[in-house]
Amino acid sequence: MKGQVLALSGGVGGAKLVLGLARILDADDLVVIANTGDDFRHLGFDISPDVDTLLYTLAGLADPLQGWGRHDETWNFMAALERLGGETWFRLGDADLAMHVERTRRIAAGETLTAITDDLRQRLGVTARIAPMTDDMVRTQIVTDAGRLDFQTYFVRRHCKPVASCLQYLGAESATPSPVLLDALSDAHLRAVVICPSNPYLSIEPILAMPAVRKALALCSAPVIAVSPIIGNQAVKGPTAKLMKELGQEVSSATIARHYRGLIDALVVDVQDAQMAAPADIELVVEPTLMLTLEDRERLARAVLVAADRMSATPKRASVR
Amino acid sequence: MKGQVLALSGGVGGAKLVLGLARILDADDLVVIANTGDDFRHLGFDISPDVDTLLYTLAGLADPLQGWGRHDETWNFMAALERLGGETWFRLGDADLAMHVERTRRIAAGETLTAITDDLRQRLGVTARIAPMTDDMVRTQIVTDAGRLDFQTYFVRRHCKPVASCLQYLGAESATPSPVLLDALSDAHLRAVVICPSNPYLSIEPILAMPAVRKALALCSAPVIAVSPIIGNQAVKGPTAKLMKELGQEVSSATIARHYRGLIDALVVDVQDAQMAAPADIELVVEPTLMLTLEDRERLARAVLVAADRMSATPKRASVR
Repeated sequence: MKGQVLALSGGVGGAKLVLGLARILDADDLVVIANTGDDFRHLGFDISPDVDTLLYTLAGLADPLQGWGRHDETWNFMAALERLGGETWFRLGDADLAMHVERTRRIAAGETLTAITDDLRQRLGVTARIAPMTDDMVRTQIVTDAGRLDFQTYFVRRHCKPVASCLQYLGAESATPSPVLLDALSDAHLRAVVICPSNPYLSIEPILAMPAVRKALALCSAPVIAVSPIIGNQAVKGPTAKLMKELGQEVSSATIARHYRGLIDALVVDVQDAQMAAPADIELVVEPTLMLTLEDRERLARAVLVAADRMSATPKRASVR
Repeated sequence: MKGQVLALSGGVGGAKLVLGLARILDADDLVVIANTGDDFRHLGFDISPDVDTLLYTLAGLADPLQGWGRHDETWNFMAALERLGGETWFRLGDADLAMHVERTRRIAAGETLTAITDDLRQRLGVTARIAPMTDDMVRTQIVTDAGRLDFQTYFVRRHCKPVASCLQYLGAESATPSPVLLDALSDAHLRAVVICPSNPYLSIEPILAMPAVRKALALCSAPVIAVSPIIGNQAVKGPTAKLMKELGQEVSSATIARHYRGLIDALVVDVQDAQMAAPADIELVVEPTLMLTLEDRERLARAVLVAADRMSATPKRASVR
């Protein structure tokens, strides 16, 4: 099938599927929207962690072991900063710094994050379009037993240890989605919207919390298909499971299905979860969802597109909504 | 003799003598004032090249070969920045970046450059006091056949190639000298003021261009002794000779003597220049001034102090002024 695929993604987990999609789709056929709810200002830099993880992953520059930052990175900046008494809880590699310095300079010069990201991805040889979810400021905050925390304070500085009671996406209500996102959603030839297996609360919800995105998704003619980040009763990575429990949710793909209900046409779940119950309006697609190898990423991406294309042939979502 | 020694210095050449002074004086007895006319804002950072060269030199972190920056430096930031299309004409090493990031952050937080420099030098284990000449903005500009150029544009980006016709020190007239500088000059027990063998026009003149400094120097009871950066008819390093010619000056220590006349009590010149003529009010001190080894630095520093102490015993400047 032809037409663009729109992927909504957070950082590491989502980027794995995005890489799979990038490897099986033509360059013009993939648009990736990155969560910017994790963005923050640190040491004077405008830092966009999920944008960078996607850029590095698609450019072949990502560190395959730690899941963030660049491979062959050096840490002389951090070592020197520590000696000068600077803040070192958020680790910035020497090469990675160039991204933050250049982005910060260009934002200060009046460019949008959308324009900057598009230029940087081309310079890094990334052919798929990558755009931030918005050029406005949206900040994910976690209300915890240790108070209200900014995302990076919660995630990196406090290692997700505080117990969360709710999440808020400051600025999302009034943020204007990136034109790249709105253009893709209003494209009559859009092939599919893929919600990557990122943390639904921390990485995907900031995107969906913009009212214009939710509206455009509802109007969009393409099938919307999410990949569950849960296998059995565990999250593949990160604080998803801990957070789900603290928010009073069962850790399961059934919870993910309920969470995305009304928004998605299909949910891809792992073979371990083949027997799970799903809402009637969500088609379950059963596939191995653990992505260890590059082949895993491509295979899962292909399965997602096959399911989406099948759904396009027999639309059913319209009747449910 | 007891009492503090005040050294006025630019970058590399001056820092060599400062290191010699630091090695032969007690920690409390050396105050170093750094030129900040070369300071500039680049890539969003507040950069103070001469302050840093002095810090790195006294901390034992300086690169002994290139004369600026840090030894064992890595350059991954620059390589990554180049790939992103950033400006790379001013080379910033990975560890060096920490200095600029931390200084910029603290200036933005409202600290003075004097306070920041004093804290950073302590963190780097530098016992001598190092202070910028002022916390205000003074900018050296070079009027050339290629137009009016900021110092770093002239010096680094254009490799001193444009032909200079005059120099200006923007902001010097109204700048308030650092309290560290004024306190030292008004100290009745000050042992000596040493004008290091830095470029008189580019590195020392910005300090002297602040009216309060010139006045305090004239009132100061300690001997003022300069070390010529010229040997024979050549500058030891940098654009000094080229600049002197373009400004219509003979390249010689005699020119340096005339330049500092009325301000200094003695000029240290190289043995090659032992026969030179000097104004009657300036005592010539003949020493090998080329500092190749650490021993050279210490020996010259000792000679400067010996001359200064001799002069204190038989003051003659007062009659001339």
